[in-house]
Amino acid sequence: MVKLLECVPNYSEGRDLGKVEKIVDCFRGKAGVKLLDYSSDKDHNRTVVTVIGEIEPLKAAVTESVGRALELIDMTKHEGQHPRMGAVDVIPFIPVKNASAEDADAAAKAVAAAAYEKYGQPFFLYEQSASAPHRANLADVRKGQFEGMVEKMKDPLWKPDFGETIHPTGGVTAIGARPPLVAFNVNLATDNIEIAKNIVKAVRYINGGFRYCKAMPVALEERGIVQVSMNLTDFTKTAIYRVFEAIRTEAKRYGVNVIGSEVVGLVPMQALVDCAEYYLQLENFSVEQVLESRLI
Amino acid sequence: MVKLLECVPNYSEGRDLGKVEKIVDCFRGKAGVKLLDYSSDKDHNRTVVTVIGEIEPLKAAVTESVGRALELIDMTKHEGQHPRMGAVDVIPFIPVKNASAEDADAAAKAVAAAAYEKYGQPFFLYEQSASAPHRANLADVRKGQFEGMVEKMKDPLWKPDFGETIHPTGGVTAIGARPPLVAFNVNLATDNIEIAKNIVKAVRYINGGFRYCKAMPVALEERGIVQVSMNLTDFTKTAIYRVFEAIRTEAKRYGVNVIGSEVVGLVPMQALVDCAEYYLQLENFSVEQVLESRLI
Repeated sequence: MVKLLECVPNYSEGRDLGKVEKIVDCFRGKAGVKLLDYSSDKDHNRTVVTVIGEIEPLKAAVTESVGRALELIDMTKHEGQHPRMGAVDVIPFIPVKNASAEDADAAAKAVAAAAYEKYGQPFFLYEQSASAPHRANLADVRKGQFEGMVEKMKDPLWKPDFGETIHPTGGVTAIGARPPLVAFNVNLATDNIEIAKNIVKAVRYINGGFRYCKAMPVALEERGIVQVSMNLTDFTKTAIYRVFEAIRTEAKRYGVNVIGSEVVGLVPMQALVDCAEYYLQLENFSVEQVLESRLI
Repeated sequence: MVKLLECVPNYSEGRDLGKVEKIVDCFRGKAGVKLLDYSSDKDHNRTVVTVIGEIEPLKAAVTESVGRALELIDMTKHEGQHPRMGAVDVIPFIPVKNASAEDADAAAKAVAAAAYEKYGQPFFLYEQSASAPHRANLADVRKGQFEGMVEKMKDPLWKPDFGETIHPTGGVTAIGARPPLVAFNVNLATDNIEIAKNIVKAVRYINGGFRYCKAMPVALEERGIVQVSMNLTDFTKTAIYRVFEAIRTEAKRYGVNVIGSEVVGLVPMQALVDCAEYYLQLENFSVEQVLESRLI
């Protein structure tokens, strides 16, 4: 069985679309590699690529894209709203089909080793690949950003896993394995942001909620409603339906109904199958019974 | 965009597995054709094949399999519990991806024309391809079975769409387009078959229920419970969750809970996505957001 990984590299270029195309070209026309999506944001000055592939060709394409980004992006001149520390800012590998977290971890480490050797780009291993617990969270790793990294790396706690200090124009890259992330929002029949804030506190991890739930309250001004906006960072352990039902239950104490919900971007089939299984009380169902799963 | 059709031909041979393999071989090693599943039943003396493919190669492979079945199966000697009228008994074509009912209908008619010309096998067009309303239902078409077909075809109402009378050893085949069918069963927390019978009458089409719901009550002796066993013949119009919730509501009047449900065999991704959309109240969701849909 062919193992498939997803990779969602973030590049610090979102304004010069000619440069973006040259980077994205690394994922085109390669056997065993499929470019699913890419989008550039001018305010963030950043491009996010979504690519899926068999492990070896995917590793090769991602490594090549690091070299291409280093040729095209100069971090000493980079400006943008999004926090960033490298020309390639972050490279997550996600298991998709027949692949394990270990496969994703091995791919991340192999790409870091190859790109460091070829191009001298340093890497922090993060998320499931982190070499110490304090280096797992991307926000912690990236703190200080490109401009603060030379100083930060003098602290032995923040020596890169590959390399000693930053690449002069490429900065440093976070790379690692992570579970698939589902961006899931729930809309409430109220314009009272305090209610959204209270519900957020009930469901998100940092306030005592679900282990793999990050959440924040958002006011949808145009619709005159509020939203619980979430990232579910491991839907296999913190299921979409479980968080949804918990929000519905919390909203009841305020006499507020759930109007609807939304999935932003891509979602693994298993995450939705889990929901259908729960609500239909399906017995002994396997994702292999989904016709389309036979066609991949 | 590549159009994909599913085809689920039924062959009247389920005992001589050597012959079965020779028929199934028609779907192996062909570019653009993928054999998903096949299973033979000795009591029924019948084999059901599930195959998916691009339209042209799929048509060619199915046509070839008709010829192969005619070489290997002699209906004058066929015995089995399942009603049947031909060596290839029935050939449904189902739209799967980027394909319409019209594409499935055209494929069915093309295969019938080609197999009649090459092998002299006559065909009835049925389901969405039927040439008259009384010929749409397979049970009506097949009534009289192989042994009664010569007589039946003398009635102008039952002249085949291709051919004049039966093939001497191959009988006649029903072929046509149909929507994907979902086999869905709901298990009830009771051993009272009367309750299952009453619920069946509430949900199935022939008694006033859902348009695309066929249902029957079944006793699951080993588990000591009863089941509403269904075929949903068009899940896009009679949704799984809608039938499930209707059964739950009907069961309440008897104080009976739904224990669970099951999907038998394959189910299109859209059918489960529809359920997740309903229960999660998803807004503006598209099946294109399912990561795996990008990989087909």
